[in-house]
Amino acid sequence: MKTKATLLTIGDEILIGQIVDTNSAFIAQHLNQIGIEVEEILSVKDELFHIIEAFQRGIEKSDVVIVTGGLGPTKDDKTKTALCQFLNCGLIREEKVLENIVQLFASRGYTKELNNLNHDQALIPEKSTFIQNRYGTAPCLWTAVEDKIIINLPGVPFEMKGLMRDEIIPRLKNQLSSEVIVHRDILVSGIPESDLAILVEEWENEIPDFISLAYLPNRTSIDLRFSAFGQNEVELQNAIQHQIEKFKEIAGQYLLSEHSGKPQQILGEILIQKGLTLSTAESCTGGNIASLITSISGSSNYFSGAVVSYATSVKTSVLGVSQDAINEFTVVSEQVVEQMAKGACKVMNTDLAIATTGVAGPNKGEDNKAVGTVWISITNGDKTINKKFYYPYLDREDFIKIVSNNALNLAIQFVKENY
Amino acid sequence: MKTKATLLTIGDEILIGQIVDTNSAFIAQHLNQIGIEVEEILSVKDELFHIIEAFQRGIEKSDVVIVTGGLGPTKDDKTKTALCQFLNCGLIREEKVLENIVQLFASRGYTKELNNLNHDQALIPEKSTFIQNRYGTAPCLWTAVEDKIIINLPGVPFEMKGLMRDEIIPRLKNQLSSEVIVHRDILVSGIPESDLAILVEEWENEIPDFISLAYLPNRTSIDLRFSAFGQNEVELQNAIQHQIEKFKEIAGQYLLSEHSGKPQQILGEILIQKGLTLSTAESCTGGNIASLITSISGSSNYFSGAVVSYATSVKTSVLGVSQDAINEFTVVSEQVVEQMAKGACKVMNTDLAIATTGVAGPNKGEDNKAVGTVWISITNGDKTINKKFYYPYLDREDFIKIVSNNALNLAIQFVKENY
Repeated sequence: MKTKATLLTIGDEILIGQIVDTNSAFIAQHLNQIGIEVEEILSVKDELFHIIEAFQRGIEKSDVVIVTGGLGPTKDDKTKTALCQFLNCGLIREEKVLENIVQLFASRGYTKELNNLNHDQALIPEKSTFIQNRYGTAPCLWTAVEDKIIINLPGVPFEMKGLMRDEIIPRLKNQLSSEVIVHRDILVSGIPESDLAILVEEWENEIPDFISLAYLPNRTSIDLRFSAFGQNEVELQNAIQHQIEKFKEIAGQYLLSEHSGKPQQILGEILIQKGLTLSTAESCTGGNIASLITSISGSSNYFSGAVVSYATSVKTSVLGVSQDAINEFTVVSEQVVEQMAKGACKVMNTDLAIATTGVAGPNKGEDNKAVGTVWISITNGDKTINKKFYYPYLDREDFIKIVSNNALNLAIQFVKENY
Repeated sequence: MKTKATLLTIGDEILIGQIVDTNSAFIAQHLNQIGIEVEEILSVKDELFHIIEAFQRGIEKSDVVIVTGGLGPTKDDKTKTALCQFLNCGLIREEKVLENIVQLFASRGYTKELNNLNHDQALIPEKSTFIQNRYGTAPCLWTAVEDKIIINLPGVPFEMKGLMRDEIIPRLKNQLSSEVIVHRDILVSGIPESDLAILVEEWENEIPDFISLAYLPNRTSIDLRFSAFGQNEVELQNAIQHQIEKFKEIAGQYLLSEHSGKPQQILGEILIQKGLTLSTAESCTGGNIASLITSISGSSNYFSGAVVSYATSVKTSVLGVSQDAINEFTVVSEQVVEQMAKGACKVMNTDLAIATTGVAGPNKGEDNKAVGTVWISITNGDKTINKKFYYPYLDREDFIKIVSNNALNLAIQFVKENY
């Protein structure tokens, strides 16, 4: 039997769209790795009735309910009260929680008497056990409800993450004899989703029941995700690999990567393998490509740096783009993007460089190029590819995201073809 | 009566944590702006039983149910089948959907016969009306269920966003006579959340019922959010302002900003107001600060660019940091961060610059400084503030995020104090 989990997030800030719920994805990923399947994710208001009803729903549907948020010291934090009502129990004081709060305040430079609200944080539902939170003032709660478990975590992401990693995952792994879940993504490109589905229909119908397949289309490619459930991780991995071999016989020409992942991850791996260094020169992506590259641990081994040349003057003064080219062709042109890329290679002394220039909008650029126009260049000083894209319908955020992804994908392709 | 909405997201990719559900925050924000309150957000699997049960729950709890995902052409897309079962009706063909698909394929450079799956996309539940989707192949569905509404949108973010903006929000605004919701955040700093709550307790108890208050603690500050419901937007704004004036009498010394927002937004507004320009020199933040600044539309008016000096050689060659300072103090030092900031001002010819250097981890930096150590500098060439922080427990992503936020907040403070 698969162990099932429900994730509950408590807090109005999610329901008004003020913050994006990144906690649930983190928790789901980590549960998956120990074979626990997330049944559903539910976000409800900071109101007693809603929280209690959500506990009830979670317990009915799942073996483990992981709750984030609503544990703070202020009036809008109602999770502990709701838990007591749900469990039909009172609160008891845990002095060790207070000791932790005193220590935390001291480390943040507050030396003060604890107030009533701090004292309230040390009150724990009688039927729960607490787990010390060295990242913040609200303790984590672990409550057995018959043969099921409710776990309460603070909603502040770095506190939640620390507690999940240090405490919750090891304990769950210990208590539950779970099946293993293996996921693997492959990346397909150059064929519409519907045509791909028809091409591989027979193969798809014969995939055994313990493996499921999902199509995750992006703008320029499709992720095919295999998920397999069973007892033995290696056997599951082999079974998926076997399916991928069959897929290759039918649709191998569309397979871009057998191990799909974020392009910054894939690019990093290839650069390390080939011993190449990289820099970026970014205009419309504003540093986002550099930010994606440096989000990968170990990127300092191949990434030297970036010049974000938002102002035209930085394009000429730092990257050495010629003023004549800008005057003749405008800043959003093949000539300028190529000079930016070559300039980055030279200034930062790297084997390769990526450059972007375009109009992210919503306002037109200085030379009145249409919003959505963008040039990307990849160069090694000797060989260069320049490519134009046009995304008129995207908002600023999506435009930057898609251009960055395209640039990273082009760089992967460039390295594969030239090294 | 407030109009209530439930948001449903369909798709295993959210439940395994492969993607973060950013759609719900976007939809919630836009509903809020037209006075529709989101009751809950629920993410369920691509399975008929779960989807149908979620429709039922949404309709019971809310006036409007907005569903994203599961409308694609492949086998794992089951939302339309689930909707038919829920509505107890069949499918009919809409030729106009096919015309749209042909047009879309042509614009993407595919000229091909439509296949069966494309034809299936033109099948619409008999009880639904369709709304053309010029961003993708799956049409949007609008279904009246007695006096309630179910709206189905594709899960691909840029398709969903375009349809929400162009079609859904205008239609909902037209159909529903909603109350207005006004949110306003203020930013408080320098006092623990619990002490603040005690300090303002009397005031908080006397806030009228139509205004609610929430505490949203961050690592270095607290957002206080006021939400007011009523008929008249201006009256609600005035009522909140009145409460803020009272708050200022009691706790004014802790108020950092009367209009809280993302620091990159606040900084941008101040820079425009004071007519100042900015650049960044980033090591450990890897371009993330530049990326945040340029995420704001209009940032090209004050942001000239960035040098991401990931490699030490870029610190010396592009930013002009002295090799002696690096040898003597290491790259993670007050001396180096200050030289980076001053170098950025000079190289990119800006009034101000922000610089960061630190060890994001998980591996130690080249000079063996402990993971989590970071220096931030803000300078105008003449005056400079340098500040050291230490975050040993954070993962790479959070470290970069928190250092970037701190840097932006320091820059806001610097401008406020010096201009």
